[in-house]
Amino acid sequence: MSSPVTGGPGIESLGTMLTAGALLSDPASTEAYRHDWTRLPDAGTPLAVVRAGSAADVQATIRWAAEHRVPVVPRGAGTSLAGGATAVDGCLVLSTERMTGIEIDPTTRTAVVEPGAFNAAVKDAAAPHGLWYPPDPGSFRISSIGGNVATDAGGICCVKYGVTSDYVLGLDVVLADGRLVTLGGRTVKDVAGLPLLKLFVGSEGTLGVITRVVLRLLPSPSPAATLVAYFDDLRDAAWAVVAMGARVRPAMLELMDAASIGAVEDFQPMGLDREAGALLVAQSDAPGAARTDEITVMAGCCEEAGARSVFATDDPAEGDMFLEARRAAGPAIDARGSVLAEDICVPVDRLPTAMERIGAIAREHQVEIPVFAHAGDGNLHPAIVHVPGDQEGRRRAEAAFAAILQVALDCGGTITGEHGVGRTKRSALPAQLGPDVMELGQRVRNALDPLGILNPGVLW
Amino acid sequence: MSSPVTGGPGIESLGTMLTAGALLSDPASTEAYRHDWTRLPDAGTPLAVVRAGSAADVQATIRWAAEHRVPVVPRGAGTSLAGGATAVDGCLVLSTERMTGIEIDPTTRTAVVEPGAFNAAVKDAAAPHGLWYPPDPGSFRISSIGGNVATDAGGICCVKYGVTSDYVLGLDVVLADGRLVTLGGRTVKDVAGLPLLKLFVGSEGTLGVITRVVLRLLPSPSPAATLVAYFDDLRDAAWAVVAMGARVRPAMLELMDAASIGAVEDFQPMGLDREAGALLVAQSDAPGAARTDEITVMAGCCEEAGARSVFATDDPAEGDMFLEARRAAGPAIDARGSVLAEDICVPVDRLPTAMERIGAIAREHQVEIPVFAHAGDGNLHPAIVHVPGDQEGRRRAEAAFAAILQVALDCGGTITGEHGVGRTKRSALPAQLGPDVMELGQRVRNALDPLGILNPGVLW
Repeated sequence: MSSPVTGGPGIESLGTMLTAGALLSDPASTEAYRHDWTRLPDAGTPLAVVRAGSAADVQATIRWAAEHRVPVVPRGAGTSLAGGATAVDGCLVLSTERMTGIEIDPTTRTAVVEPGAFNAAVKDAAAPHGLWYPPDPGSFRISSIGGNVATDAGGICCVKYGVTSDYVLGLDVVLADGRLVTLGGRTVKDVAGLPLLKLFVGSEGTLGVITRVVLRLLPSPSPAATLVAYFDDLRDAAWAVVAMGARVRPAMLELMDAASIGAVEDFQPMGLDREAGALLVAQSDAPGAARTDEITVMAGCCEEAGARSVFATDDPAEGDMFLEARRAAGPAIDARGSVLAEDICVPVDRLPTAMERIGAIAREHQVEIPVFAHAGDGNLHPAIVHVPGDQEGRRRAEAAFAAILQVALDCGGTITGEHGVGRTKRSALPAQLGPDVMELGQRVRNALDPLGILNPGVLW
Repeated sequence: MSSPVTGGPGIESLGTMLTAGALLSDPASTEAYRHDWTRLPDAGTPLAVVRAGSAADVQATIRWAAEHRVPVVPRGAGTSLAGGATAVDGCLVLSTERMTGIEIDPTTRTAVVEPGAFNAAVKDAAAPHGLWYPPDPGSFRISSIGGNVATDAGGICCVKYGVTSDYVLGLDVVLADGRLVTLGGRTVKDVAGLPLLKLFVGSEGTLGVITRVVLRLLPSPSPAATLVAYFDDLRDAAWAVVAMGARVRPAMLELMDAASIGAVEDFQPMGLDREAGALLVAQSDAPGAARTDEITVMAGCCEEAGARSVFATDDPAEGDMFLEARRAAGPAIDARGSVLAEDICVPVDRLPTAMERIGAIAREHQVEIPVFAHAGDGNLHPAIVHVPGDQEGRRRAEAAFAAILQVALDCGGTITGEHGVGRTKRSALPAQLGPDVMELGQRVRNALDPLGILNPGVLW
């Protein structure tokens, strides 16, 4: 009597090709890989999970999946807020969490990083060499470089230092047929052939699985000075952002609305002004005395925009406190219930309009929508809070979610600035891109993954 | 009796679809569009030239070309150094030279630019608003934004401010079937869908024809201070470059070897030290007093590396003189004969090795190869000089050209840092990319241009 095949088409045949212990197929173990941080109610159940120990494991997994026409959901640290790493029924979840190597080359100022290494680990490895990896998504302490690259992750530093794609010099990628290709390298300029490297950064696991990344590092920045400004009116704060951006290059330019301030104070009292309509937190890391000059210019912009109070500090510890208050907004809002995380981005002059319309949507749909924002980039994170288990509340939250995506489009912006389309925004993507660009993307995806096995359901 | 069809398959039927005067089909007029700056001896003869006046002209041209299976060679200002805009027999040269509109939006710090506008015109249009378009290829005064985007052009500023792709927020592109698509927009972050925008930047006219570009602008930088250092030994200069890059972020870090210095002095005496083995020209545009600090650090790196003299100036006019000396290297070398322009890029720590090997190649092949370089990026421009009409000399120059490409590969670098593959380096591309990446690129190109009408012979 043959033993029963657990979990589908001869999965044990895959196990024999992998590093020992890489394959998890019992439901108790695979359960933890169904969801990412989006916690989609309709997450599927994987056939098995591969915890790859090497690029060879990734290749073997993809080859097996291609042979058996089994979908593959690539997964870094599972911190997607757009359902980008959410399992589908019968898939292989391909986790790179065990591939965490980091090598720093101080001479060429590069890091060679395996995809499972955390963003913060790269920063930590670079620091002793006087080097810095800038991209800093909110999840940087617990999100992986592979996921950061797959989503072209942003963060707080972007307003001055750009996004992940600005730092990716080279990639190893396992293609949909199991071949491993190396794109780019260690040079900071390289235009040999089509820009395929850039095509993979932000492709959300639909074109290949990243197994190695060469990152560009910068010299560590100067210590930052911090500016904090409270406003009665959110729109005034938004106009201050527009004014600052035209005159200086802040290293950080973040905004919290009254609801975000309140959420942080409820969660972890930090002495923020609950009476304010908005809080701006900005930094300058200009070297030497120029830092003071930049802060003075930024403070002037806030005062001209009608700030109720403006405060500046050169003390890094004091500045960090306000940065931590801003970083606490996400967890603080999460603590209020279930959250639909938005991530729209608008041209910076539409920031006041977008903020106003989001307020109207919250009132109309009777949902709480605190907003925090990478305001210097026009990148808004409205967080739509609803009560877990309240179906009617969930329905209203989803209606607000769709309405906010429409605000982005009406403002000439995008439905996603840095989280990705994933599974949560695919229905809105055609409205942004239009039929011709959708078809163009489908042609590229079909050319690279003709069997459609890589992250199906993501993007479209 | 029907009138003879001039220039191939019913070209007059195209003329009726275009803006008046857009179509040139008499050989006297089209002759000027056969060559770009590469002046390839085997440039073809076009069927006709379209001087598009609008995106609609571009669409009509491509639709006609697709219908008649006629190759299209897109052309900006024709300054390619890699044969990227060289005509092929029976093609349509599609010139965007008449599409020169520029609109600056100071609030969102963006420029909307038609492809034929010169790079310098964008800089000039931005300046009155206190804004700056950084990319500055050597050709910036006479090269077009469309060509800059198609090649992902670099320049002197890249060491601190990156390349063209870092500034492209949005593109209108006419696809190979004549459809016009809009990719990206005015937001600085946008991850909605596959990163198709990035795929077109640097695609060398093989995937579509750019008809409109949205560029990100920065606030104008602080005035720069300039550092000039002479070295006896080229290798010492190269090591100084490596040392500087690890400690500061120069706004410019350029190198000229002895032959380049001599060429400039022969061409236009500027008082450079002909006895030196190498000249470094570096700038800092750090704000305020930090500029002096950076220059001091860079001067220290030069002294530690054994510079024979180091000179610094805060006077912009004096600094500009050295920048102009560096910019004169190209024209000065061009004046010495025919030139094969190289553009390799190596990891910065391989700069000394690469320089040494290029010297050996010059001796071995008995050709003059002055080298100037965007040294901070490891991007070298060896210029292989030969006597026009000397076939044997041309043969030796071509052998040296191939040998230098091999140096790039041996150093883990790239055969082209910023000029593109064009037609001059396509034979070396497979050695750099390998068969799998070549095939991947071909799949993408075939998916977007199944008839193969866009810039055939470029890339592969």
